[in-house]
Amino acid sequence: MSQLQRITINSQQLQASQLLLTSQQQHYLWRVLRLQDGDQFIAMDGMGKWWLAQLQGEQAQILEPLETNQELPLSITLMMALPKGNGFDEIVRYCTELGVTSIVPILSDRTLLNPSSQKLERWRRIASEAAEQSERTIVPTILEPVTFNTAIQNCTSNHRYICEARGNYPHLHHIINNITYQIYEIMIAIGPEGGWTDQELEIAIKSGFILISLGRRILRAVTAPIVAISLIAAKFES
Amino acid sequence: MSQLQRITINSQQLQASQLLLTSQQQHYLWRVLRLQDGDQFIAMDGMGKWWLAQLQGEQAQILEPLETNQELPLSITLMMALPKGNGFDEIVRYCTELGVTSIVPILSDRTLLNPSSQKLERWRRIASEAAEQSERTIVPTILEPVTFNTAIQNCTSNHRYICEARGNYPHLHHIINNITYQIYEIMIAIGPEGGWTDQELEIAIKSGFILISLGRRILRAVTAPIVAISLIAAKFES
Repeated sequence: MSQLQRITINSQQLQASQLLLTSQQQHYLWRVLRLQDGDQFIAMDGMGKWWLAQLQGEQAQILEPLETNQELPLSITLMMALPKGNGFDEIVRYCTELGVTSIVPILSDRTLLNPSSQKLERWRRIASEAAEQSERTIVPTILEPVTFNTAIQNCTSNHRYICEARGNYPHLHHIINNITYQIYEIMIAIGPEGGWTDQELEIAIKSGFILISLGRRILRAVTAPIVAISLIAAKFES
Repeated sequence: MSQLQRITINSQQLQASQLLLTSQQQHYLWRVLRLQDGDQFIAMDGMGKWWLAQLQGEQAQILEPLETNQELPLSITLMMALPKGNGFDEIVRYCTELGVTSIVPILSDRTLLNPSSQKLERWRRIASEAAEQSERTIVPTILEPVTFNTAIQNCTSNHRYICEARGNYPHLHHIINNITYQIYEIMIAIGPEGGWTDQELEIAIKSGFILISLGRRILRAVTAPIVAISLIAAKFES
């Protein structure tokens, strides 16, 4: 099964045991993957369901639902200040591979750009591709960019952490390894290149966020979330 | 101090309290960083020593050695099979930031390319830049590419791990968190896109390598070493 190609579908494309393929999906299956009539592939709805499907012209026949268990046992929300340039593309790609559940792009005090709606579409496409490549059953949700205050107000989890590079804060590894019970949701906020402003840190602390470190070296804005998600995933999966 | 610019020097450039700058370093300090006569910067020799220096024309005056402590308390050697394309550039950049000590590029059974000597120079330049950016005192050593067999024979550490994506092996997190004493050296081998061949895995196991997993999702060859180094650094630093 692991060698079959995967595509992400919208569950509305399913009609009984038929899967109606969009023209883009048809192009991808026929032209890019070079599948032929009768070839099998995996359709995933990005919400945790997978099906074995068989290509038949502009449609596919659903053969059976598949059991998979590649997802983490907890939900991880990454609240990520938008970095310079195309850094967010890389963050979405890596963190999807590593098992993130949702990503909230944040317009922080030190964020320079206000992303276009094409950017959001691009990030969602990257998340979808990375979920397929890493054989995940869930495509992470990439939310609309919001201000730091809005993101903080929307927080639901009791386990809230905010990373700060310079300062003698406890290491995330140390904090999460002291959690001895099963938790179901964790939120982690990571700043832009220049770090969070003092005002932002103050707001976060008032909202119950715990200041943490990711080690003594100064990480790029792209690297910090990859480290954080790696540590959380490893702790709660292994 | 953290706001001063850094450059990597060769210790042979030091003559008493004078630092003789190469023309490339002069260009970087004067033209790229736009420093002026009398401005201070940090010179690091990539072997753990830092100095505060002051620019004076084609030379710099060494003002004082600096105490720093950004390095991990153990040596991490990454034995990394060369991936497709420019993936190794990213691996060198991220793993340097995360604290790796040395990287051994490996020509595995499934490695497609035999890199040119320009590649090795390029990786060393990336390691040097990333060490400066992440404020490390040591620039990781990037060794000449070797075959898998040679790399295995050159192994010195008693703590040897080899990652394999498909298979029910214990998670690296679990293995290293059960180490309760201080260790000084760890080696981790990570395969190319198609994974190691059965023959390679057999050789590694015979040489005392322990098979480990990095989680249930399938990681790209670029992502796997970043996860591994993140976990090792966090465990032994925090």
